[in-house]
Amino acid sequence: MIDVAIGVDVGGTKALALVVARDGRVLAEVQAPTPHLNSDNIGGPTADVVTSIINELCSRQGLDSSEVPICIGLPGMMRRDGRLVYAPNLRSASGADLGALLGASLSSAMVFCENDANCAALCEHEWGAARGIDDFVMVTLGTGIGGGVVADGRLVRGRSGFAGEIGHMVVEARGAACHCGAHGCWERYASGGGLNRMTREAAIEGRLPTLVAQRGNAAAVRAEDVTEAAAQDLDEAVVLMKEIGWWLALGLANLTAILDCGHFVIGGGLSRASDLVLPSAREYLADLVEGYSARPAITVTSSLFGPRSGAMGAALVAFERTS
Amino acid sequence: MIDVAIGVDVGGTKALALVVARDGRVLAEVQAPTPHLNSDNIGGPTADVVTSIINELCSRQGLDSSEVPICIGLPGMMRRDGRLVYAPNLRSASGADLGALLGASLSSAMVFCENDANCAALCEHEWGAARGIDDFVMVTLGTGIGGGVVADGRLVRGRSGFAGEIGHMVVEARGAACHCGAHGCWERYASGGGLNRMTREAAIEGRLPTLVAQRGNAAAVRAEDVTEAAAQDLDEAVVLMKEIGWWLALGLANLTAILDCGHFVIGGGLSRASDLVLPSAREYLADLVEGYSARPAITVTSSLFGPRSGAMGAALVAFERTS
Repeated sequence: MIDVAIGVDVGGTKALALVVARDGRVLAEVQAPTPHLNSDNIGGPTADVVTSIINELCSRQGLDSSEVPICIGLPGMMRRDGRLVYAPNLRSASGADLGALLGASLSSAMVFCENDANCAALCEHEWGAARGIDDFVMVTLGTGIGGGVVADGRLVRGRSGFAGEIGHMVVEARGAACHCGAHGCWERYASGGGLNRMTREAAIEGRLPTLVAQRGNAAAVRAEDVTEAAAQDLDEAVVLMKEIGWWLALGLANLTAILDCGHFVIGGGLSRASDLVLPSAREYLADLVEGYSARPAITVTSSLFGPRSGAMGAALVAFERTS
Repeated sequence: MIDVAIGVDVGGTKALALVVARDGRVLAEVQAPTPHLNSDNIGGPTADVVTSIINELCSRQGLDSSEVPICIGLPGMMRRDGRLVYAPNLRSASGADLGALLGASLSSAMVFCENDANCAALCEHEWGAARGIDDFVMVTLGTGIGGGVVADGRLVRGRSGFAGEIGHMVVEARGAACHCGAHGCWERYASGGGLNRMTREAAIEGRLPTLVAQRGNAAAVRAEDVTEAAAQDLDEAVVLMKEIGWWLALGLANLTAILDCGHFVIGGGLSRASDLVLPSAREYLADLVEGYSARPAITVTSSLFGPRSGAMGAALVAFERTS
């Protein structure tokens, strides 16, 4: 009987590893920055960092890494066999078989991989903000936007396991260029990266005069300045955050049209900023969703576990694959 | 043992009723224009037309309408209980309980309703261009764009039964106004209605000089003129049809990102024009789908039954609900 599993969430900026009990309690936590070194050994630097934080967790908790089930949540297109075939926000690992690399470095036959937002969706469905809800979408706002689609109680994986790449839904044809090569992807407007881009543009266009004056020049204004100022009700910052809320609502409205999901759980590293964004996103939904008044209420809630839901869900996958 | 069912497809321009055998053979067919009269009796004119074509079919085939299972495929948001709660392309019936109206007028307890594109998806999955394929989207190009989403072999209905409203996915934020109240919906760019709109705009903007000269003035150029001229390789018309193909591909790319569906079946009343559009749509997919080269081939095929698939699928639903 295995009592604990290790779940790791590898994001565009940091990797978080947790020891999780079967009932969802988090027993230990380690994190480290995600490497973006380009190496001939594709995925090698990422595997090294993940190995290192897992080893640190195990030594802290007195665990043997070869005897604990481990699952790594990864951003981008994960094939059902575990290969990360395309990861625009983690290019140095794009194409790598991280399951195999980590299995080797940890001497373990119990290393699994899953898309990070799918992990978060499973976590929220089992323990969090979507318990008992059969039709919902998990939306992770981080460097990009990830998604986990649950329809009629089941995770939608698609033909190859690539479903849920909702951040690359184009909402502005010929709009802002995206890492993926397309233009106008949703995540260029409503993610952490989108907030960075829109902050830069607003500063240059003269729409953030107070913040530009505080920082000395437009190029020095950062997304964090906007979220902090918005939290303190600075008008120009509130306006920009509402704009992000409008774009967030636009994508949620699209998902509602396609999936009739009715419920959204918003998580990911941008969670704190998203507290500022969600109220306006909820308001804009009424204008943006087709037939809004003919539908039961659409709910948009924050993830119960914030930036931890991906790693917790990864642990859940590790339990499921070894049970 | 019931041998035949009646399937009706009520579109934005016409209603088609078929008598269908259990193996998919179509035994008889009647059609009529869809009424757009506004009446105090919401849905009444539509129910009258449908009743009349069903009665005509029954008298031709020697059937008793109260003894044959009947299903009506309707455009827009159909609730699981059969009420058409919102239908931007069939406003005169929006809000009506057509199942109840028709049950009364046909004295039948075997009248069912389903979304038209869901019907088409079920038909193509059972008998047509998606046999044996577990992850696909049926895309019906008519007055608008309807959709039926099949994931892991099961129709995705969503919380209230409204899933598949893919035509109201916004692909151009703040773009062309849509009947639904939003702006930039996919169906304003890639449906029959979209082709009408884009033809009008292109004629006014001077991008269809030959057709404008033929017709005498820009306002007289119709979508049919463009499709006919494109079929005869007139450059200006070919360019416009390619533009439609690009927009079609954009929406398919979005659905691929969200659902990883891998296969699309294109049907609906615009099928003939879509033969001109599909080759370019397939080409544009390579540029528009995230991680295109990392995926297995994405296939886009025409519906095997063209404008009949909705009515045939409705008959299939009628069989299923009475078996």
